[in-house]
Amino acid sequence: MNRVENEKYAAEIEDARGHISSTRRVTVTALEEILFEICPILDHGFIRVVDYMGDDTAIVQAARVSYGRGTKKVSEDQALINYLMRHHHTTPFEMAEIKLHIKLPIFVARQWIRHRTASVNEYSARYSVLDREFYIPERSSLAVQSRSNRQGRSDRLIYDEATRVLDILKSDSSRNYDNYLLMLNEDALGNKIDPSRDGLARELARMNLTLNAYTQWYWKTNLHNLFNFLRLRVDAHAQFEIRAYADEIVKIVDRWVPACSSAFKEYRLGAKTLSATVVAVLQAKIRGEDTTALASTLGKRERLEISELFPGLFS
Amino acid sequence: MNRVENEKYAAEIEDARGHISSTRRVTVTALEEILFEICPILDHGFIRVVDYMGDDTAIVQAARVSYGRGTKKVSEDQALINYLMRHHHTTPFEMAEIKLHIKLPIFVARQWIRHRTASVNEYSARYSVLDREFYIPERSSLAVQSRSNRQGRSDRLIYDEATRVLDILKSDSSRNYDNYLLMLNEDALGNKIDPSRDGLARELARMNLTLNAYTQWYWKTNLHNLFNFLRLRVDAHAQFEIRAYADEIVKIVDRWVPACSSAFKEYRLGAKTLSATVVAVLQAKIRGEDTTALASTLGKRERLEISELFPGLFS
Amino acid sequence: MNRVENEKYAAEIEDARGHISSTRRVTVTALEEILFEICPILDHGFIRVVDYMGDDTAIVQAARVSYGRGTKKVSEDQALINYLMRHHHTTPFEMAEIKLHIKLPIFVARQWIRHRTASVNEYSARYSVLDREFYIPERSSLAVQSRSNRQGRSDRLIYDEATRVLDILKSDSSRNYDNYLLMLNEDALGNKIDPSRDGLARELARMNLTLNAYTQWYWKTNLHNLFNFLRLRVDAHAQFEIRAYADEIVKIVDRWVPACSSAFKEYRLGAKTLSATVVAVLQAKIRGEDTTALASTLGKRERLEISELFPGLFS
Amino acid sequence: MNRVENEKYAAEIEDARGHISSTRRVTVTALEEILFEICPILDHGFIRVVDYMGDDTAIVQAARVSYGRGTKKVSEDQALINYLMRHHHTTPFEMAEIKLHIKLPIFVARQWIRHRTASVNEYSARYSVLDREFYIPERSSLAVQSRSNRQGRSDRLIYDEATRVLDILKSDSSRNYDNYLLMLNEDALGNKIDPSRDGLARELARMNLTLNAYTQWYWKTNLHNLFNFLRLRVDAHAQFEIRAYADEIVKIVDRWVPACSSAFKEYRLGAKTLSATVVAVLQAKIRGEDTTALASTLGKRERLEISELFPGLFS
Repeated sequence: MNRVENEKYAAEIEDARGHISSTRRVTVTALEEILFEICPILDHGFIRVVDYMGDDTAIVQAARVSYGRGTKKVSEDQALINYLMRHHHTTPFEMAEIKLHIKLPIFVARQWIRHRTASVNEYSARYSVLDREFYIPERSSLAVQSRSNRQGRSDRLIYDEATRVLDILKSDSSRNYDNYLLMLNEDALGNKIDPSRDGLARELARMNLTLNAYTQWYWKTNLHNLFNFLRLRVDAHAQFEIRAYADEIVKIVDRWVPACSSAFKEYRLGAKTLSATVVAVLQAKIRGEDTTALASTLGKRERLEISELFPGLFS
Repeated sequence: MNRVENEKYAAEIEDARGHISSTRRVTVTALEEILFEICPILDHGFIRVVDYMGDDTAIVQAARVSYGRGTKKVSEDQALINYLMRHHHTTPFEMAEIKLHIKLPIFVARQWIRHRTASVNEYSARYSVLDREFYIPERSSLAVQSRSNRQGRSDRLIYDEATRVLDILKSDSSRNYDNYLLMLNEDALGNKIDPSRDGLARELARMNLTLNAYTQWYWKTNLHNLFNFLRLRVDAHAQFEIRAYADEIVKIVDRWVPACSSAFKEYRLGAKTLSATVVAVLQAKIRGEDTTALASTLGKRERLEISELFPGLFS
Repeated sequence: MNRVENEKYAAEIEDARGHISSTRRVTVTALEEILFEICPILDHGFIRVVDYMGDDTAIVQAARVSYGRGTKKVSEDQALINYLMRHHHTTPFEMAEIKLHIKLPIFVARQWIRHRTASVNEYSARYSVLDREFYIPERSSLAVQSRSNRQGRSDRLIYDEATRVLDILKSDSSRNYDNYLLMLNEDALGNKIDPSRDGLARELARMNLTLNAYTQWYWKTNLHNLFNFLRLRVDAHAQFEIRAYADEIVKIVDRWVPACSSAFKEYRLGAKTLSATVVAVLQAKIRGEDTTALASTLGKRERLEISELFPGLFS
Repeated sequence: MNRVENEKYAAEIEDARGHISSTRRVTVTALEEILFEICPILDHGFIRVVDYMGDDTAIVQAARVSYGRGTKKVSEDQALINYLMRHHHTTPFEMAEIKLHIKLPIFVARQWIRHRTASVNEYSARYSVLDREFYIPERSSLAVQSRSNRQGRSDRLIYDEATRVLDILKSDSSRNYDNYLLMLNEDALGNKIDPSRDGLARELARMNLTLNAYTQWYWKTNLHNLFNFLRLRVDAHAQFEIRAYADEIVKIVDRWVPACSSAFKEYRLGAKTLSATVVAVLQAKIRGEDTTALASTLGKRERLEISELFPGLFS
């Protein structure tokens, strides 16, 4: 966003924050505090909470199909939420909903959109001209292709190679964007560059942009589907750039539904699913039996993962 | 609901209505007025609005991917909403959400649940004992099987036959419910009938109930999917009993999102989809040409429907 | 089904089985063997495989986005499938599809339909008359309501109480069905009982039926969603009656996609998800440390479940 | 695809086509003929049918919940299919399924993926290196931005401006791809360019690619959702590039389910949905009444559309 736009948006956001109404609905003070505010991610991206429905008690209320608020003591509500999470009774978590406004690089948007159980309205580059903004990673994020995991990163690039990569990314993004405007025959303020030319249709010109160009969308989902998204995208195997967004959403969820968030961390994020064989190995280990035979049936990769999780298990 | 329960629920609802909070979110005064209140349907059913997210401006805001409230003048917002509805740009309508608490006969619930794009938490008859409530139609609703439409009703039953039907429905429902309690070994207040007996598991005893027994659920969906539900269930071909619920929901939608509701009535409920051939017939008619040859290619049933819609078209 | 219908259906099924065509698609011999055949469940229910798409190699092919069959050696394919299952890379499992024709009691159908990610066409009782068939449990299935788990069964009912329950279920189901026909004014063969009467509309008469009446539907889903269904419905906490269907589907899956089925059993059915705290307890135990303090933070119920899974862990 | 790859793929496809098996499932000869074959779209894209389930009779069979093939005479089947389509009884159309392998530019993939009700496995640029292929439009497709419809194209660009656009697209795509390989430190055959360097992680390097780079995926959906996709993407308002794919899929559907395809064209593609007001105008016109007052309530844009559809209606 250029400075003029930034200021315009800041004013619109301030205006939205200024409207206070009274409601009979449940409200969440900690979330109201940051409502509409821009929370920056990466170099030009952001997340803003735009609306929400329900709080921790909405889950409890639906699980009990109750007439009133449906809550009992806080400790009982937490215990019920833990139980629901632990036993995969997932439908009550669909009863809370959140709507976010997100600005993100297109290559991140392409990973994100694979989560199909959400509502999305994306800024249309058929209809409007995209901002002059592209994601250029921090030098510290430029990593070597991993050899052990074909879908991942390894160590940092050495300084010179990183410099060269940054130069390429910056110059290619800029030039492609400049050429995008040139084909559109528009300058950054939307004025015609050359009055004698028509300009290429937007839906065509956009194809010259690079995948690190920023797009934005409204994204609305329920808490159950949000937890599924977070479980995959907070994970160490997720790409760093989408993780930056997911990490921020976890903080938002902490404000919004602290009891659900706590259950999510205990029974999903921090939990481990162990195969039938690994469970048998653990049972044998606790009984003090030798686990060599059982463990030998595990695949090499699973065995490696498990020995990192439980050092000493196979000895 | 027996009287004791009714009063308990009334108190819980009154309590919920009494909580007023302040919020930065958009609120809808006309909907807040009826929030949590029981709106009776059929003989023992009801609908209550339990929560909502967004109003008409939420659709406009998402369509524009705007930073602020995203609305311009009311007339411009209505025009945009009409345009979106008319051209099947449906995703912005997913940006408003509503949550209802509904009590309904099981055979209605079975039709309702076929709409898969909603979140549902149903009162569990594995876990709890169902209320002593069954749907007994009004005498005026007892209709003869239609001959022309195998899936519908025709004229009213004659008085004596209707009386007999009502007697059967009442006595079978009651006796099956009494036997349900007997098998459970519980009375209406949940006390053991015969202290020496254990009682059959609830998940089994319920199978003796009739399909007109009432169940209840929390049902949450977005405005787009709600419109799909309403288009099918407000229709004259929908069964009277589910239409009673759909008609009430239309009134709720009128309160909640009046601009969207107006567009929905103009471009969905009151609209007609005409086949390629019918469009060609209409075009010929307007040009003053003979339509006989074209019209003869229409199937019998479609021709009948179209001549009811456009009397004089085929003459 | 009465005898006449049974024979008619048998002939139709035999006819369908007789059509052999040649195809370039992947086929599964073990599944073709039972295609269309009725596999009985409970007293009047059944499952029939009606169609399928893909086999184990379809998952591998999609994961590799390959041009040909995409498979390598059988052992490599199994290793890839295990990896996908273990790391929740679920989308390739959506690439195989199966279609079943199922006859089941209505109360089971109501649990089943809660799985929303499937396509369903149910026999319409608005349109047609249901068969004279109701589920009457085996004496051995009649269990007492569980005290420890409000949503479950405990020991068998004693003989006399079971007899009484069976008498109630049989007589209530039969009488309600007889009254259903009486209201319809139709006998079992579809002829009018009393020529002078019209008969109540089918969509109304059906409400007199009990929840153990049988319905039937076509149900089509992909392997990923089928596994989700099975994980919940094969579980010991699922109601016995739906488990009977799920157990049979597992056998079908064994025939259809043996490599996926094996991975599913190892990494889902037989696997355990352990909370962050339980993982920490196990790590401490393996290190030979005292686990008392850590274990004390577990909820009572979770602690009980874990000590059943890992006897000796907390000692 | 370079020549070596092309030949390798051709051999794999030929091999897949060579496997003929016998099956009890319904098969579609006209679709088997083209199974697995590459059907080229745009300059480097394609569609291949990889698998299918069901044919026209599958829809009929599910609508009737029948035991056998469920079909009667071909004319009766077509009439039933027309009826289902006309009255939006959409669930039987979910009973047929198709799987396609598609190669398409990324900006087209981004439009396509907005259809959420399908299964997708995309070639991973985190894991693999993308081919050196980008979409360069035909000169005849280079259109001016439309003024009347902000989301569309108007006339062709003049020759010189088109030449300049083509030059930009070609040189920017090529250079960005070359720099992509340079950052990866890999040549087109996957060999290291500079043995002393590590190369940037693939998940990062891809962000330098332009939106006209080609990606590919397996895409599987049912006939109902496919029709929804086609209705939107065959439409004149859809972007030319995605329409090229949609048009080809229509031809595939013609081969696969000719009766459904015919109903789709008559009751969806060629059909028009008219608003309540427009229906009233048409009714008045047919009665020979003056339509001026009624017509004046239509919005400007809708009035324009309708007068194009029915010339003479408002006179």
